[in-house]
Amino acid sequence: MNSGDVQKKARSVKEASAVLYNCSSKKKNVLLKAIAAELRRQVPAILEANNKDLTRARSAGLSSVLIERLALSGKRIDQMIAGVGDIVELPDPVGEIMEKVKRPNGLVIEKIRVPLGAVGIIYESRPNVTIDASALCLKSGNAVLLRGGSEAINTNRTLVNVIKSALKKAGLPKGCVEFIGTTERSAVLEMVKQEEHLDVLIPRGSQKMINYIRAHSTVPVIAHGEGNCHVYVDGRADLAVAEEIVFNAKVQRPSVCNAAEKLLVHEAIAPEFLPRVVRRLRSAGVEIRGDKKTSAMIENIVPASEADWFKEYLDLIIAIRVVKDIQEAIVHINRYGSHHSDAIVTKNKKHGERFLQEVDSASVYVNASTRFTDGYEFGLGAEIGISTQKLHARGPMGLKELTSVKYIVHGTGQVRK
Amino acid sequence: MNSGDVQKKARSVKEASAVLYNCSSKKKNVLLKAIAAELRRQVPAILEANNKDLTRARSAGLSSVLIERLALSGKRIDQMIAGVGDIVELPDPVGEIMEKVKRPNGLVIEKIRVPLGAVGIIYESRPNVTIDASALCLKSGNAVLLRGGSEAINTNRTLVNVIKSALKKAGLPKGCVEFIGTTERSAVLEMVKQEEHLDVLIPRGSQKMINYIRAHSTVPVIAHGEGNCHVYVDGRADLAVAEEIVFNAKVQRPSVCNAAEKLLVHEAIAPEFLPRVVRRLRSAGVEIRGDKKTSAMIENIVPASEADWFKEYLDLIIAIRVVKDIQEAIVHINRYGSHHSDAIVTKNKKHGERFLQEVDSASVYVNASTRFTDGYEFGLGAEIGISTQKLHARGPMGLKELTSVKYIVHGTGQVRK
Repeated sequence: MNSGDVQKKARSVKEASAVLYNCSSKKKNVLLKAIAAELRRQVPAILEANNKDLTRARSAGLSSVLIERLALSGKRIDQMIAGVGDIVELPDPVGEIMEKVKRPNGLVIEKIRVPLGAVGIIYESRPNVTIDASALCLKSGNAVLLRGGSEAINTNRTLVNVIKSALKKAGLPKGCVEFIGTTERSAVLEMVKQEEHLDVLIPRGSQKMINYIRAHSTVPVIAHGEGNCHVYVDGRADLAVAEEIVFNAKVQRPSVCNAAEKLLVHEAIAPEFLPRVVRRLRSAGVEIRGDKKTSAMIENIVPASEADWFKEYLDLIIAIRVVKDIQEAIVHINRYGSHHSDAIVTKNKKHGERFLQEVDSASVYVNASTRFTDGYEFGLGAEIGISTQKLHARGPMGLKELTSVKYIVHGTGQVRK
Repeated sequence: MNSGDVQKKARSVKEASAVLYNCSSKKKNVLLKAIAAELRRQVPAILEANNKDLTRARSAGLSSVLIERLALSGKRIDQMIAGVGDIVELPDPVGEIMEKVKRPNGLVIEKIRVPLGAVGIIYESRPNVTIDASALCLKSGNAVLLRGGSEAINTNRTLVNVIKSALKKAGLPKGCVEFIGTTERSAVLEMVKQEEHLDVLIPRGSQKMINYIRAHSTVPVIAHGEGNCHVYVDGRADLAVAEEIVFNAKVQRPSVCNAAEKLLVHEAIAPEFLPRVVRRLRSAGVEIRGDKKTSAMIENIVPASEADWFKEYLDLIIAIRVVKDIQEAIVHINRYGSHHSDAIVTKNKKHGERFLQEVDSASVYVNASTRFTDGYEFGLGAEIGISTQKLHARGPMGLKELTSVKYIVHGTGQVRK
């Protein structure tokens, strides 16, 4: 595929976006139901394509974590189908009147939600993103240009063909969902320069990939960034509650962005709390790194380097730091964190409120696990990612975050004085 | 000034933003009032600095339009002071609870407005932007790094000193407002790479300048873009109303982004409407360009080139095209327009609704002048610009558009199952 092909697909998406822009909720739901039906019909073809990818991945020596992400099964396809069904049930954000005023001169001004238009999505190994992201984009009236990871190329191509069949059945242009079917990296560079045809890019992947895209993109970016999440156990915490929250935030699913990577402990309770929490974490196989104070209290701590404090492990590793007060904890989180999800455990209401106010992260918690940062858990429905940036969307991104706005003004001949 | 200086100022702004982030509305208003008082106190110094800039501009042969934009007077400074006073009166968006839910597991989740953080503003000749933009940023809890046009360098430096005096009086760090005091273009390139310190860039100026910034910036951009605005006079329009709207949209203030640059006329009414509207426009000195059909009906029409249809004149020029129906008008506007402000004049309700739905612009009007696209006219208060992009903000950008969001979650020990 040469650069002309990427541009051609981007243009095709842009053209189709004009049709989706004016599509009723009913028609969009018909399309989503057709996608679900087509997925069910094509399970064997999808699994066959996935097998090809898995075989290649194994012979290329990919890690078991990556292979696990790549693998589909009947059950995983069922989950994809159920996910599309969930999106059918979600309210359509397009057309929502957000604000309405009548001005003294008689103009009636409404601010309404409209689709973004043409959305580019760049993602890595999980093939379910092909379906989830497309369904969210289509429901919110957006056309989408997909660029998946090279290791899932056969699976993704088959899933896109499923969507294309459904588009045909629903009488919608096939450009509503286009797929860049090459594994060459140059295609990404070409894609991020399509500002004439794409309204937004949503990269999902490593910070390195996101930084690359930010550095080169002329299309506005909403980044699903990494999560270097913290739990701070305050001097006046319920230690049993603190232990459960730390354990859950670290161990329940360590490979995801809202898992805790760092534990900050107030020095007043460290002598009592550290031994019990470390014992509990080690029981689940967690490697403990720590600062000097932690090492002084607990045996066999791997010394944490400066780089550790910035790091997202996505693994059974945690780094612990003993702090002298909440101030030091907040400064540490704002400096080293990734502004994703951070929690305080405390019985002190003032400290809780101060933490919520001063920690500059997308989601901040008092007395709960960071693992709740998720569209479903927040009651927003399916999400296309979790934004760690401040512009346009921050935190879990659902259908509303896939919209823009438009002012519509009804007049009776008004002119400006 | 070398590149280290730009970085140093960006870091200073970032540090100050942490103080503003936690600043009460009361304190921010005290600061704004101090800025207004200091402006009043320093009128002679401001006018002296402005005179220096004007002298230099005249000897450099700048156009009268640019000199008019650059010139301050006692009256214009009074307007700046009044503008700051207006911003004091606006409600503080920071802390507003936008959504609140209690989840079945007992978590209480609130989505609240927070400041963006550190805002970079790159602007051209008008020195009032120095005060207006700073006041809006400060009220919304943001620190700001300013880079004004070289022709206004003395005026801008003096205005920033006014703000610095007020910051000192209010006990706030001087980094809350920093100014890049060099006219070298390399400083802009350095500024747009400060993604570590700046959360957003707002360029205000020519499309060329904005494209340059988009192409090079690693900081997210909200662009105040150009306005190639249209008035479409439908087949069933009240021609007297249409004439007033076209005249107002073109002539009332031709140098601004919401002025009309193009007139589309339905062929059914063109023979009757064109002569009267052209006569009226010519009476105000407007140059008329047009397509062949227009030329066939009216004498002395300058032929409009393909490039004309894309162009923002910002001058007493209009290009006219005769279209065969509303469909052709909508396609033309979506293709050639800048998605800023577009109007239809019609008595046909269905056509009005169709135009509002299908024209993909930030502001769309039925039977009113495009000149109303403005923060004050929309009832939003002072604006920092008018966004023609779809991400984050679209249309007039007021205080709300200078905020981000944050999810704050109150728990009682919840962990994820």
